[in-house]
Amino acid sequence: MIAIGERINGMYEDVKKAIAEKDPRPVQDLARRQRDAGADFLDINVGTAAADREAAMRWLVETAQEAVDTPLSIDSTNFDVVKAGIGAAKNPVLINSTKGEPALLEKFVPLAVENNAQLVALTMDSRGVPADVNTRVEIAATVVTFAQEAGLDPSRLYIDPIILPINVAQDQPQRIFEAIQQIRMLSDPAPHIILGLSNVSQSTKERPLLNRTFLVMALAAGLDAAIVDVFDKDLMDAAITAEIILNKSIYSDDFLRAARK
Amino acid sequence: MIAIGERINGMYEDVKKAIAEKDPRPVQDLARRQRDAGADFLDINVGTAAADREAAMRWLVETAQEAVDTPLSIDSTNFDVVKAGIGAAKNPVLINSTKGEPALLEKFVPLAVENNAQLVALTMDSRGVPADVNTRVEIAATVVTFAQEAGLDPSRLYIDPIILPINVAQDQPQRIFEAIQQIRMLSDPAPHIILGLSNVSQSTKERPLLNRTFLVMALAAGLDAAIVDVFDKDLMDAAITAEIILNKSIYSDDFLRAARK
Repeated sequence: MIAIGERINGMYEDVKKAIAEKDPRPVQDLARRQRDAGADFLDINVGTAAADREAAMRWLVETAQEAVDTPLSIDSTNFDVVKAGIGAAKNPVLINSTKGEPALLEKFVPLAVENNAQLVALTMDSRGVPADVNTRVEIAATVVTFAQEAGLDPSRLYIDPIILPINVAQDQPQRIFEAIQQIRMLSDPAPHIILGLSNVSQSTKERPLLNRTFLVMALAAGLDAAIVDVFDKDLMDAAITAEIILNKSIYSDDFLRAARK
Repeated sequence: MIAIGERINGMYEDVKKAIAEKDPRPVQDLARRQRDAGADFLDINVGTAAADREAAMRWLVETAQEAVDTPLSIDSTNFDVVKAGIGAAKNPVLINSTKGEPALLEKFVPLAVENNAQLVALTMDSRGVPADVNTRVEIAATVVTFAQEAGLDPSRLYIDPIILPINVAQDQPQRIFEAIQQIRMLSDPAPHIILGLSNVSQSTKERPLLNRTFLVMALAAGLDAAIVDVFDKDLMDAAITAEIILNKSIYSDDFLRAARK
């Protein structure tokens, strides 16, 4: 699983404070600890409090990459904030995210191509977030076609079918599993499938248990990337074990340790 | 998930000793504790050491049902031992198990029908345990047809597609998931699908983690019963959470406690 560490986000008090005070230490500490916990990308999100979000994004990107070489995920739906993040990044980034709406894809897909970036597209458009499988797959098909025509290889494209919180929409996980299976068939190679995992357990009492149980099922359905709390060791263990069971990594008695090397 | 508690088995030293010494306490303690931990059936297996296996089965059945009313799973492939267990049982049992071989089905299916019992049939026959999906499904189809013709409703039939240990056959879990999906389509209503879960992690170092991760995926594929260690709280929590995610039980914030009531 491609793990995107969710923790450098201005929605968290420590990061919000670090941005406001231009204090690099909490950000760099989170960057190192997430890398060590197995993050393949570090998500960078300035949150909503920053006065100048482009400047905040530049500062966060520069600060994080002073500490680690881990690729960054530039987390904003605002085109100018994303551009600011890309401009500050030393290495190619993951753009996280745009919607599957032609007017946005026309801007974001070329931006990804020009900057050798990867791109996350949500299966939502001007109509909102669909609750059914078909609309999710239709929007994903629009994205895949758009990407192919603009020269963005499916291997650089991540489709996020958007999981809704289980406590308000208990029928959604199964629709997500079905959507994942269908979206994977839209191109060859398949696009990556990604989820912002924590959303499934929003406002529930058993968040870690719901997160990791849902993640295991989604991986079995074909998910191959997720924005997660990489500090949740049980979650990361579950993901590593799921890949062993799905025969995506080779079994050894010490497979947990092998995966963390 | 229909949980069959695996612990009353003569392969365990405490049960073996209890059988040899005709000491009811360890057996009844295991019976009560497994019931309290969520077992829907208690598996009863005399093991291989008992001199008179029919007598041992009768004693185990009588001893267990003095302590609890939980239905019993009579675990033997020997026809006479199964008959001894049924004869001693106050309530209808689950016969666990026979093979999907006509010569055996001709004896075991009528035995189940006559005794109002449920029946587990393994997808193996005189050729052994198949490693592929198709042979598993073929054998299951033979069993389903046999049961229907003999008047055993699919709702009383459990097919076990047999999971092999992951450390020697890492491609098997995915074949099991596919076999489960296909076997469920053999009849309407579908037969139950059951697995002896612990086999997946035989001789591995991370048994509980492999067991529960595999179980969650198998439940997503359509498994609805398993022979398990019900004392493994993490495993039972995972099964309960899986059913919430699959929308098979209704979400509440206290869903773990609700499921255990």
